[in-house]
Amino acid sequence: MQRPNPEWDLIADIQRRAGADPRVPLGIGDDAALVRHSSGDILVTTDMLMDGVDFLIGQTPLELIGRKSLAVNLSDIAAMAGRPTAAFISLALPRKNGREIADGLYAGLMPLAKEFDVAIAGGDTNAWDGPLVVNVSLLGEPSEHGPVRRDGARPRDWVFVTGPLGGSLPSLRHCTFTPRVREALALQVAVNLHAMIDLSDGLASDLGHIATASRVGIVIDARRLPIHKDVAGDGATRVQHALSDGEDFELVFCVSAADGQRLIDQPPPGVTLFCIGECTAELGLHLRDQDRITPIAPSGWQHQFQ
Amino acid sequence: MQRPNPEWDLIADIQRRAGADPRVPLGIGDDAALVRHSSGDILVTTDMLMDGVDFLIGQTPLELIGRKSLAVNLSDIAAMAGRPTAAFISLALPRKNGREIADGLYAGLMPLAKEFDVAIAGGDTNAWDGPLVVNVSLLGEPSEHGPVRRDGARPRDWVFVTGPLGGSLPSLRHCTFTPRVREALALQVAVNLHAMIDLSDGLASDLGHIATASRVGIVIDARRLPIHKDVAGDGATRVQHALSDGEDFELVFCVSAADGQRLIDQPPPGVTLFCIGECTAELGLHLRDQDRITPIAPSGWQHQFQ
Repeated sequence: MQRPNPEWDLIADIQRRAGADPRVPLGIGDDAALVRHSSGDILVTTDMLMDGVDFLIGQTPLELIGRKSLAVNLSDIAAMAGRPTAAFISLALPRKNGREIADGLYAGLMPLAKEFDVAIAGGDTNAWDGPLVVNVSLLGEPSEHGPVRRDGARPRDWVFVTGPLGGSLPSLRHCTFTPRVREALALQVAVNLHAMIDLSDGLASDLGHIATASRVGIVIDARRLPIHKDVAGDGATRVQHALSDGEDFELVFCVSAADGQRLIDQPPPGVTLFCIGECTAELGLHLRDQDRITPIAPSGWQHQFQ
Repeated sequence: MQRPNPEWDLIADIQRRAGADPRVPLGIGDDAALVRHSSGDILVTTDMLMDGVDFLIGQTPLELIGRKSLAVNLSDIAAMAGRPTAAFISLALPRKNGREIADGLYAGLMPLAKEFDVAIAGGDTNAWDGPLVVNVSLLGEPSEHGPVRRDGARPRDWVFVTGPLGGSLPSLRHCTFTPRVREALALQVAVNLHAMIDLSDGLASDLGHIATASRVGIVIDARRLPIHKDVAGDGATRVQHALSDGEDFELVFCVSAADGQRLIDQPPPGVTLFCIGECTAELGLHLRDQDRITPIAPSGWQHQFQ
């Protein structure tokens, strides 16, 4: 699902023109939408991946492209602490080798669907003269605790991530990552999750979404930031990678200090956790490195238009 | 949603590899999928439109491209006699003029969403160096009578269409058509709809889907076939256009002879109907023209691979 882009107010335009709708208690601007039907609430998310932008055909193995197309959507449902149910796969296949490409995509996609108990329920398969485009829409159910939004963080909340950050692109981890669906459900049973998001654009950018939506500030402690072994370089460069590389697809979330201490003392089985900072009443994102506190510029991935 | 393609068994492959899933009572191969959640059943359909295939950017007005991207999905929900609820819009926008293109698309899409009471609940907006791609996923609710499938036609059923056929591409009617959502709901209240499909690939091809799924034959009466005034030519050529042009987005459905007579005597208000033929126990599609009965080849739109 799309995030607000400071360079372009299309999403704000759509929100304004669409108006509030009682059937969509959570819509444009969160990881997934919550759609209210007469029968109950459904989570829905959709992501479009394109050759040359999200993968490079000929370089990225087809199986990994197929896997990623579902995995990024699973990560969005995880960010709401939902349970994924059914996926819909739309393909614009190059006319040349279209069938082989489709077979390769599904060979990567199907095992992940099975692992996360997702039904492949439909889609739209097309051929054209353009590059490969894969769109996946994924449905899910909120857990009995309800969906976790991104606007509930409070001053003095502790901020956690579920794994080390940075370097996901050169290592292909942006395709092979494990969506944190199980971790989110386990965390929601253990504590009261105030706000959560999945790390797609990069920690600085995605934390900015939580901070803005929740009207809090966030201070990240550089020394506690888990930096992935895939990140080269040293010191400040490594921190910068962890803050801004993006496509980590770990979860970042905020809980009360008491719940934070509980998670450190007794993390849910199988869940990796790092406490990386704290929410503040003073707005803005900051990095604490030893005794220096400096503002963090939101520096994640943004689509560019001419 | 995709239809089985006799030239390519990817969809059959996916069905076989995905296996039956109790959460998807109706999946790949119908107009929309029915997904069973713990809270109830949801209809879902998705369609991807591409520059050069489904429209021509620079020739087709942007507003009509945006309108069509939602309208084809509304037509799929109509074919199940469902009520559309929420749409998700994914865009791959050319980097050049991306913003103007998006604004144009939404200017055509939003009024149709409003007309059919559909919430724009989310999406994914991207820029790239390729041509425009628009993917819309649409959710809906089955009516209290349940979804209408394509496999319930019976021998001696009468076959109806909701409007004249042929010539939709040169006239741009493939972009400006009215999805038959209201008509389907009114028909389902009036009679017992045995099978229904929307006409996207062309009457011959789409009737073939009903005939195959229902294991019946169908005989179309050429003299009763409503041919759109947009179709040029005369006689047999005009019939061929009505049978195979495609993108009419009218509904074709099958009801008992008694219900058929009831519809002719008292059509639901606002619903245009033409009785065009009859189902038979003998398999195959046939055209009756005066006293001659000839087989109809399925000749609708199919994507081609090299």
